[in-house]
Amino acid sequence: MITGKNYIGRSLKAGGDKTHKTINPKLNLENPTAFYEATPDEVEEAVNLAWEAFKTYRNMPGSKRAAFLNAIADEILALGDELTTMFTTESGLPEGRAIGERGRTVNQLRSFADLIAEETWRDLTFDPAEPNREPLPKQDLRRTSVPLGPVVVFAASNFPLAFSTAGGDTASALAAGCPVIVKAHAMHSGTSELVASAVIKAAEKTGMPNGVFSNLTGRGRTVGQALVKHPKVKAVGFTGSISGGRTLFNLAAQREEPIPVFAEMGSINPVVITSNALEKRAEEIAQQYAGSITLGAGQFCTNPGLILTVESDLTNSFIETLAEKTTDLDAQCMLHPNIKKGYEEHGTLVASQSGTETVKKIEKVTGANDAASQICKVSGDEFLKNPKLHTEVFGPFSLVVSARDEAQLIEIINGLEGQLTGTIMAEKEDYPTLGPIVEALEYRVGRLVFNGVPTGVEVCPSMQHGGPYPASTDSRFTAVGTSAIKRWVRPVSYQSFPQELLPEALKN
Amino acid sequence: MITGKNYIGRSLKAGGDKTHKTINPKLNLENPTAFYEATPDEVEEAVNLAWEAFKTYRNMPGSKRAAFLNAIADEILALGDELTTMFTTESGLPEGRAIGERGRTVNQLRSFADLIAEETWRDLTFDPAEPNREPLPKQDLRRTSVPLGPVVVFAASNFPLAFSTAGGDTASALAAGCPVIVKAHAMHSGTSELVASAVIKAAEKTGMPNGVFSNLTGRGRTVGQALVKHPKVKAVGFTGSISGGRTLFNLAAQREEPIPVFAEMGSINPVVITSNALEKRAEEIAQQYAGSITLGAGQFCTNPGLILTVESDLTNSFIETLAEKTTDLDAQCMLHPNIKKGYEEHGTLVASQSGTETVKKIEKVTGANDAASQICKVSGDEFLKNPKLHTEVFGPFSLVVSARDEAQLIEIINGLEGQLTGTIMAEKEDYPTLGPIVEALEYRVGRLVFNGVPTGVEVCPSMQHGGPYPASTDSRFTAVGTSAIKRWVRPVSYQSFPQELLPEALKN
Repeated sequence: MITGKNYIGRSLKAGGDKTHKTINPKLNLENPTAFYEATPDEVEEAVNLAWEAFKTYRNMPGSKRAAFLNAIADEILALGDELTTMFTTESGLPEGRAIGERGRTVNQLRSFADLIAEETWRDLTFDPAEPNREPLPKQDLRRTSVPLGPVVVFAASNFPLAFSTAGGDTASALAAGCPVIVKAHAMHSGTSELVASAVIKAAEKTGMPNGVFSNLTGRGRTVGQALVKHPKVKAVGFTGSISGGRTLFNLAAQREEPIPVFAEMGSINPVVITSNALEKRAEEIAQQYAGSITLGAGQFCTNPGLILTVESDLTNSFIETLAEKTTDLDAQCMLHPNIKKGYEEHGTLVASQSGTETVKKIEKVTGANDAASQICKVSGDEFLKNPKLHTEVFGPFSLVVSARDEAQLIEIINGLEGQLTGTIMAEKEDYPTLGPIVEALEYRVGRLVFNGVPTGVEVCPSMQHGGPYPASTDSRFTAVGTSAIKRWVRPVSYQSFPQELLPEALKN
Repeated sequence: MITGKNYIGRSLKAGGDKTHKTINPKLNLENPTAFYEATPDEVEEAVNLAWEAFKTYRNMPGSKRAAFLNAIADEILALGDELTTMFTTESGLPEGRAIGERGRTVNQLRSFADLIAEETWRDLTFDPAEPNREPLPKQDLRRTSVPLGPVVVFAASNFPLAFSTAGGDTASALAAGCPVIVKAHAMHSGTSELVASAVIKAAEKTGMPNGVFSNLTGRGRTVGQALVKHPKVKAVGFTGSISGGRTLFNLAAQREEPIPVFAEMGSINPVVITSNALEKRAEEIAQQYAGSITLGAGQFCTNPGLILTVESDLTNSFIETLAEKTTDLDAQCMLHPNIKKGYEEHGTLVASQSGTETVKKIEKVTGANDAASQICKVSGDEFLKNPKLHTEVFGPFSLVVSARDEAQLIEIINGLEGQLTGTIMAEKEDYPTLGPIVEALEYRVGRLVFNGVPTGVEVCPSMQHGGPYPASTDSRFTAVGTSAIKRWVRPVSYQSFPQELLPEALKN
């Protein structure tokens, strides 16, 4: 069923000659299908189709767009085992994860469908006229939101379903009334083609215009950069590395008409553990964090990569326990040989810094792409001196810092780059003195977690998934939860408009 | 009372040797005071003070920040005639305008004070825990908004009070909890110093931290660019030219940590007049638009610079009437010799394009800086061919385009850059066929006006003042109305937090 071609709207095309194959990381072998990189003409055609589709799609009633989103969910489920098998084959992730992530993807689509069934998501406001106001009468003014235009979505390496082809960015942009052009991830192009086929089927069944969705593939940056530079593209969603996200942000800012780029990038997700918490439940916390650090082979943007404590006897014994428990768990296969290579390189970089010690690392792993979990430790003094210790090690790795005292711990937080999350593990007796730590984290993160782990990102209205740069390029918006729709719209006011000419949502 | 110095927090400083003077455009002479350009050290000090002030100011209860905003309004009023005289001396605008704009400034401050008295402006959301949910329990999640940090506000040439030192940008940023550093406009540095003295007095009376407000002066771009590049500055508000705004946007995007720039820039504000409207009330419309085109010597960002009609006998006679009425009104003094120079240059540029005809221009004006009102006309064919005809002529100027038919009129709208406003003048019998024009304008503008003029920007929740680039650099936000506060905050989530440690607004 997989063709290796690009969906240019509903047509499968492969006019070029550059191809790539995906890899089965468990076998460390290439999968059979050759995927054709989209040609410049195919990019142009996909964007032009999206622009034409935008003209009708933006005006469809919410109920029709909702039917489209629900149909995508149905068609994804209808792919059955073919999809979960392709997912595990291209990602090395276990089947349970494939099923779980599919469930999340389907739920996201349905929750956006529910959201747009009513027009209130547009943040409607109404200011009635005051014809007798002095010195000047007040005009009737009403405000709604309109979609920006075609959106380019870059699929994420670590979520082949939930943050990729029909993931949160695509679901929220389609919900807002924006056609979507997906740049498939080269590591899971087959999964992307399957999901794209489901989206195209759903579009046909629910009468959507051709071009409302395209799926382009390609290794390297050529296709993605051509999309971001195209004048008819009006916004970009991206989940990935700082270098990739920043490159797209720069390109978008240099356009004649700059466009917003919502790039969700690097984060080491600091966790503060108080001495009281260590005293009361070091073992339990070590267990909980060993699970969080190794979850999905540590390949989550909310993975706890930095644990901050105040030095004491408790700290050292906690670090030992954490290291034991983390390395006791079975090594897991990583997404791709390049991800494994990056994990080793960055882990070695951090571990080799002055004063940094590897407490424990799995010595030998079975699979070629298995990740050897690793816990390192360093003093607060060293950490403060050396920004290389802030490096994100994407995988089952965590660095534990022992600060001299609480003042130094806060200094460390203040010196961090922007982060997606910040966590506090504490006891009730700590509450009166935690204010400064909570406040320091508030400056640097988008979500604060109390007595929990940062992994596990709930899809709900109160979720903020995004933080100060470089956690994301626009900390004012979230990539997860229904508020994510706000990234793709802008407000428009109507002054003194007759009822007949107002958008439906703004009529009396 | 005017010193020519910079307010670095509450201290008046003038450590440099570069000075400039403002100009009385009516007399075409320099005013006496020499204003000292802020030195690099003074810029550094102002930003560092702002950062320190941020730490306490962001946590103050809304009622305290509201008291500060109301006190600023009181202190501005207490400046009395000294302020209105300085305003007219530096701007050439009439006293009535000074009083009106002061009223608007004071009202804006008070409306933001009212807004922040309650915490609902933070877009609070609450998702309760579901401890029994399967397969995983749901954590308690709550979301609020926190201020970004120190904001730099660039004063606007054409609104020495309402969009300047204590104007809408400053009022909304202070309301949000962000300290403000104003880059005073070189054309009205005296007015800025007076208003700054009022802000500083209000800050002292209401117990605000030193550095919550600074006012730096300087001609040219040195001071402003140093501010935008400073790592402790977290956002920028700007009202002015496309070239000035884009320069700041580029600088901000190139920072190691990019920051948002809300630049409200160029707009020619297209107005569509239907044949039915011309048939029924050409004279009335000409009168209304002559008033709008010449209001404030045409020096408004919402000035109607482009009038679109479908060619007919009615069109030609309407253009004659409009030109008569526009040039019949008294010429008015412009803000500055440079503004007058720009007006003449850009007017000549447009009027000299192929196929463009000056219908009427005031032949001789009295004052050196008086603006000669001018109406030009051109065919739709010529307009479509020549992007130079899109040039904003900042002053009492309008270009009337006669399109071949409605299809061409829509093609013209589709070819325009982003605009702040788009207006339709029409009759009831037009309603059934206006849909395509409304829709074409929706793509290009932030505010649609029906049977009115675009000048006059109401301060209310439904106002959208901002549009697709280059009308503004971020069409997702407004510069006018209470929603303007949203430019200066970002969301933060709290997961499973104990009541004692939640921000006040998020407690049960």
